[in-house]
Amino acid sequence: MANKAFGWAAKDTSGVLSPFSFSRRETNDKDVAFKVLYCGICHTDLHMAKNEWGMTSYPLVPGHEIVGIVTKVGSKVEKFKVGDKVGVGFVVDSCRACENCEKNLENYCPKYTPTSGATSPGGYSDSMVADERFVVRIPDELPLDSAAPLLCAGITVYSPLRYYGLDKPGLKIGVVGLGGLGHMAVKFAKAFGANVTVISTSPSKEKEALEHLGADSFLISRDHEKLQAATGTLDGIIDTVSANHPVVPLIGLLKSHGKLIMVGAPDKPLEIPIFPLLLGRKLVGGSAIGGLKETQEMVDFAAKHNVKPDVEIVPVDYVNSAFERLLKGDVKYRFVIDIGNTLKPSS
Amino acid sequence: MANKAFGWAAKDTSGVLSPFSFSRRETNDKDVAFKVLYCGICHTDLHMAKNEWGMTSYPLVPGHEIVGIVTKVGSKVEKFKVGDKVGVGFVVDSCRACENCEKNLENYCPKYTPTSGATSPGGYSDSMVADERFVVRIPDELPLDSAAPLLCAGITVYSPLRYYGLDKPGLKIGVVGLGGLGHMAVKFAKAFGANVTVISTSPSKEKEALEHLGADSFLISRDHEKLQAATGTLDGIIDTVSANHPVVPLIGLLKSHGKLIMVGAPDKPLEIPIFPLLLGRKLVGGSAIGGLKETQEMVDFAAKHNVKPDVEIVPVDYVNSAFERLLKGDVKYRFVIDIGNTLKPSS
Repeated sequence: MANKAFGWAAKDTSGVLSPFSFSRRETNDKDVAFKVLYCGICHTDLHMAKNEWGMTSYPLVPGHEIVGIVTKVGSKVEKFKVGDKVGVGFVVDSCRACENCEKNLENYCPKYTPTSGATSPGGYSDSMVADERFVVRIPDELPLDSAAPLLCAGITVYSPLRYYGLDKPGLKIGVVGLGGLGHMAVKFAKAFGANVTVISTSPSKEKEALEHLGADSFLISRDHEKLQAATGTLDGIIDTVSANHPVVPLIGLLKSHGKLIMVGAPDKPLEIPIFPLLLGRKLVGGSAIGGLKETQEMVDFAAKHNVKPDVEIVPVDYVNSAFERLLKGDVKYRFVIDIGNTLKPSS
Repeated sequence: MANKAFGWAAKDTSGVLSPFSFSRRETNDKDVAFKVLYCGICHTDLHMAKNEWGMTSYPLVPGHEIVGIVTKVGSKVEKFKVGDKVGVGFVVDSCRACENCEKNLENYCPKYTPTSGATSPGGYSDSMVADERFVVRIPDELPLDSAAPLLCAGITVYSPLRYYGLDKPGLKIGVVGLGGLGHMAVKFAKAFGANVTVISTSPSKEKEALEHLGADSFLISRDHEKLQAATGTLDGIIDTVSANHPVVPLIGLLKSHGKLIMVGAPDKPLEIPIFPLLLGRKLVGGSAIGGLKETQEMVDFAAKHNVKPDVEIVPVDYVNSAFERLLKGDVKYRFVIDIGNTLKPSS
């Protein structure tokens, strides 16, 4: 039997959200149902709300950085019980049979189901239902509100730091862009014991990067002289910028065997000259979120090492204003909607 | 005291070679001197002879796939004695102090000395002198003539197969281009236990690739239908082609987490769309030759697994004709000059 639910949805390409009633699927044997308390606002929500990638079905309930408290579990659920603190990220189902699913890389399953997509209303809503495989336990050490962005922004930068071997103490790691993803990349890289350089177009972010986020140095991406002086100094770079931008200077910052990892999604192809790749055995790679096993590992690591996103908590009726500010990069560093206290069927 | 030597050199940008007398440096304490018996002809020799990369000092004695018999060793040489079979590849000296040198990656030392460069006449000559660190032992199981191309073509494809983890049995490996490098990539990948697909512009190479070189399948790079059918099937690709060519279809052939490794050197930047890198966690990397420790390991591996370049042995006075045929791709798969029997001071 389907469950009544309530949230905020985009109903056309204006991307403006408004209150919306809908049905959640019933709680099956392996399902966990939970009351949503907080949901992060990811830039993807805005792209999807406006159908900028041409794949949106309206009405769309955005939100894939969702945390809350378990209200019901199916008869075959093994990992969770009512009252547990849990979260759901970008992926809410997958084929469970392919090579990627077998390796706990559900995020690379060709048939994965996005949490906030055509068949699954997202977390800007009062409730969530998901198979327990796709649910993460939130440790008590993490405040629920700031835990939410770990589920997308956090895993998106944690996973490539791990996969590409950029998690060893003493490495010199660059982080390009200081938004939701970038600030988490700084925090995780520092927690791994790296020396971190933030690379940004905005001189205004220097103080914040060094004093507040704990980065070790700061480069302005248009300061050719300082970039030149830093040639060949970094072991790896996590590039979080989705606007089109040149990557040749970034490749120049890498040492031999250095790795430039893209997690942002510029729409124009990268132009990459071959000689630096050959002569320095460098690589350019990508990465997208992470599998569920690694997401749990990341949340546990964040709890243990006190890695917490910096958030601005907002009421649900502020979401359209938050979208506007997000477009201007006016947030430090992630909006999180206080669903539990502000979403009412009457809003 | 310098030693009299004789070889063939390019004296201007025509790239035409002619007989040439010069001096080798004296044999220092840690030096190994050897009589050159065979030297492979690499496409780089042709680029350098014609100064196509703007870095040639004339006269240039080409050749960096050099094998021969030790004639003299310095007083502090530990690894070699007179009569040993030895070889020298692309690198004949390096700073020996940098991070790369310390890791036996002399090929990535920013101050490495090319074997055939401004300060070091190459192997199209009757003798060679090098510090023992830069000399490789040729095992008895390898015929000296066909061993020569291992020292550049061989290590250039062996090293990335190892470094990028493409050396595991059962992997599906693509090889783009079937020249000196490509045919060695097929042989090494097969020796590692891979299932090998050759990707070539020339339908005429199919029979040869499958029947003679032992590849498992063959794709014509312009056959869009077959490329489409092979989408997502390869774990890694070694791309040996130096002509400009699109790499997007190659990235499409890779499975999730697949690796496209460039060892050829197209002069135009690669155009790489981001989404396939993100959504498949794919990477594009480069690699250039290999360090001396790994070169010895590769030669020993080739001896043990009977991996031998296919060579066409030519006399030294054929070298200009060989250059012309090389330009047309008319060689299976490497010219090797029989220096020992054909280079005479009178030629």
